[in-house]
Amino acid sequence: MSLIRLMNTTDDGFDAQLEQLLAWESVSDGAVNNTVNDIIDNIRSRGDEALLEYTNRFDGWQAETAGDLEIPLARLEQAWNTIPQDQRDALEHAAERVRVYHEKQKVESWTYTEDDGTMLGQQVTPLDRVGLYVPGGKAAYPSSVLMNALPAKVAGVSELIMVVPTPGGELNELVLAAARVCGVDRVFAVGGAQAVAALAYGTKSVPPVDKIVGPGNIYVATAKRAVFGQVGIDMVAGPSEILVVCDGKTNPDWVAMDLFSQAEHDEDAQSILVCPDAEFVAQVEASIEKLLPTMEREPIIATALKGRGALIVCRDMDEACEVANYIAPEHLELSVEDPVQMASRIRHAGAIFMGRYTSEPLGDYCAGPNHVLPTSRTVRFSSPLGVYDFQKRSSLILVSEQGAETLGRTASVLARGEGLTAHARSAEYRFEK
Amino acid sequence: MSLIRLMNTTDDGFDAQLEQLLAWESVSDGAVNNTVNDIIDNIRSRGDEALLEYTNRFDGWQAETAGDLEIPLARLEQAWNTIPQDQRDALEHAAERVRVYHEKQKVESWTYTEDDGTMLGQQVTPLDRVGLYVPGGKAAYPSSVLMNALPAKVAGVSELIMVVPTPGGELNELVLAAARVCGVDRVFAVGGAQAVAALAYGTKSVPPVDKIVGPGNIYVATAKRAVFGQVGIDMVAGPSEILVVCDGKTNPDWVAMDLFSQAEHDEDAQSILVCPDAEFVAQVEASIEKLLPTMEREPIIATALKGRGALIVCRDMDEACEVANYIAPEHLELSVEDPVQMASRIRHAGAIFMGRYTSEPLGDYCAGPNHVLPTSRTVRFSSPLGVYDFQKRSSLILVSEQGAETLGRTASVLARGEGLTAHARSAEYRFEK
Repeated sequence: MSLIRLMNTTDDGFDAQLEQLLAWESVSDGAVNNTVNDIIDNIRSRGDEALLEYTNRFDGWQAETAGDLEIPLARLEQAWNTIPQDQRDALEHAAERVRVYHEKQKVESWTYTEDDGTMLGQQVTPLDRVGLYVPGGKAAYPSSVLMNALPAKVAGVSELIMVVPTPGGELNELVLAAARVCGVDRVFAVGGAQAVAALAYGTKSVPPVDKIVGPGNIYVATAKRAVFGQVGIDMVAGPSEILVVCDGKTNPDWVAMDLFSQAEHDEDAQSILVCPDAEFVAQVEASIEKLLPTMEREPIIATALKGRGALIVCRDMDEACEVANYIAPEHLELSVEDPVQMASRIRHAGAIFMGRYTSEPLGDYCAGPNHVLPTSRTVRFSSPLGVYDFQKRSSLILVSEQGAETLGRTASVLARGEGLTAHARSAEYRFEK
Repeated sequence: MSLIRLMNTTDDGFDAQLEQLLAWESVSDGAVNNTVNDIIDNIRSRGDEALLEYTNRFDGWQAETAGDLEIPLARLEQAWNTIPQDQRDALEHAAERVRVYHEKQKVESWTYTEDDGTMLGQQVTPLDRVGLYVPGGKAAYPSSVLMNALPAKVAGVSELIMVVPTPGGELNELVLAAARVCGVDRVFAVGGAQAVAALAYGTKSVPPVDKIVGPGNIYVATAKRAVFGQVGIDMVAGPSEILVVCDGKTNPDWVAMDLFSQAEHDEDAQSILVCPDAEFVAQVEASIEKLLPTMEREPIIATALKGRGALIVCRDMDEACEVANYIAPEHLELSVEDPVQMASRIRHAGAIFMGRYTSEPLGDYCAGPNHVLPTSRTVRFSSPLGVYDFQKRSSLILVSEQGAETLGRTASVLARGEGLTAHARSAEYRFEK
């Protein structure tokens, strides 16, 4: 029985097959919705009291007062001093690179002045306060702390509040150390929909934020969707995806391991290879067979490859480009001779990893760009998490006395054309004297 | 009986009063949701056939084939040639100014190369295809066509598809002329949830788009929210708002008319004045009383002012700034002596209109900046519609052979710290030979 499906772009019905392979609709569960709405209502009406109750019930530990829910910054410092030196170095190296890359994303204010003295522009300001959700327990990833916290800090957000559930009171030292290296301002040991509600509406101890970012389980995702509008949220992510485009000249073991690196995330993750060289594809298949039994997370990888993976033989590299643009993957590896040229033909991808040495995991941790990327083909209309997600713009308009007449006449014609006469008269007042 | 509520920041309970004045929660109606979901399902499963049925039923006209639903570009040209010269001039003047302003918003690709040859950057690309919803009938605003279409065109979107319902087969000439001046690529005479569904999923005659923008009624808004994820959407707007901050030295009639110009939009629109000069506030109240009976849309204005308007007396201009940042209005007029200085202290506003000559309606039509702005205090975390909403970014990563080792070692430590060994091994392959 095959470990991964084989496809060929010349197959009858390839397009339909591919569409089916990519199909992903997140199921919204009525019961989850009801639970989450109850939790939000309770936090809004009873604040800290409800937050304490939920935390004690769901996370199985006994906080006595709301004050106990805050993790002091000294505890982050302690984690930083406790972890091994190589982890401290790795966190610092990664944080520095991510910071430098994201500095380039900063959007600046601008203005210009016209001949008659009218001034136009855009004023860019950071968000006041941001909440960062960090999952607890096994899925606690320090790299997620870096990737969500640093763009906010680079944007100039004045206060960054992290929430992280501590099941059974257990803290993840590497996560706390990552929070310390990013300069997170306050940390609360709360999680789930109750943490999201507390961040959105505020309680006596948790201050309300303007935007909530960071990954979480279905309760967290549902709560984020529910509070959207009250606060901003980042995207709600689907399963992780990688598409490797290869010309057949990379070590097949490397390609197999790259496919595994997505597949090990979870059973729904998607790993696809597109290559014009059928013989190379067979070699990658052999590498998969050889290497899979050596993997710590073998069962997850096997399920993901079997359920949602594919090795696709295509006609040529031009067609590989077309397939890549159709798939619009979160991660795209161009393991080819001239990756820069090929990248210029890619219209839709979250991150493009160019060349045989650029393994996707480098981007997950420390290359510099963000690892929070649009999934499920949403890169067709959205972008990696960035500094721009923590900045906002206000239009600036200063019309001179002369401009008020020139612009006022045009505004008046259009306003009257739309039947909005208060608009017209407000403009006309400024030049009819 | 008073036409508009008077408040004073020194009142007991002012903060709570203000919070209540600003409160706005859009009610999501189960019946509307069900209707919209049915319509979407039907369009997805039966395509053009369903689109024709809904159009004939809801818009009361008889299209016989799906081909009849498309409005040919020649019809736009005809509208352009039919409207009066002053409207043609006004549309051209407005379009040119909006285009010039938005050109400044274009985000460009960038890269940088490190000492070891590793190259990082961000590739910016336009969306492939965008759908623009334009309401039909009375609320058909040509200015909305300009404000939604031009940023997409400036971004380089290759195909811009407009949909506009034509109740009883009636077309709005000014809307068609505006579409022509923007260079809209195709126009379909469809509307409602069925138009949104057709744009999101495509039918035989309507091509699927990547993002849908533009205002609409509750069915359109609900449908947009439902298809979000399949396609991108712009914000779902609440009622329009203006906050005028005045030092008491502007003509009170001007201020009254500026308040009217928001209020005439609809009964839920919000118009607020903040001013430290109680005597001036009384003059504005008198102007409201004097001018209201002269307004074409008097009943709408009166309802909006009474229900959601306010004249607020504050202690001084510093406090006026604080109140403005708390209110975080869609439109903010700074009708003061030194508006530039004051604007630099504003953290939250969709558009800032500076100086006594800058009436808000100039921004609605022709100053240059977009009139699609975040409402209901969402400017705390979001921005005016802009070119950046029609562009997206892909991270670029090209790691050199040497970089693969430097970065690989850090990635390996962090990946192993997270228990993701396929990630670690994928990185390690590139330097352990």
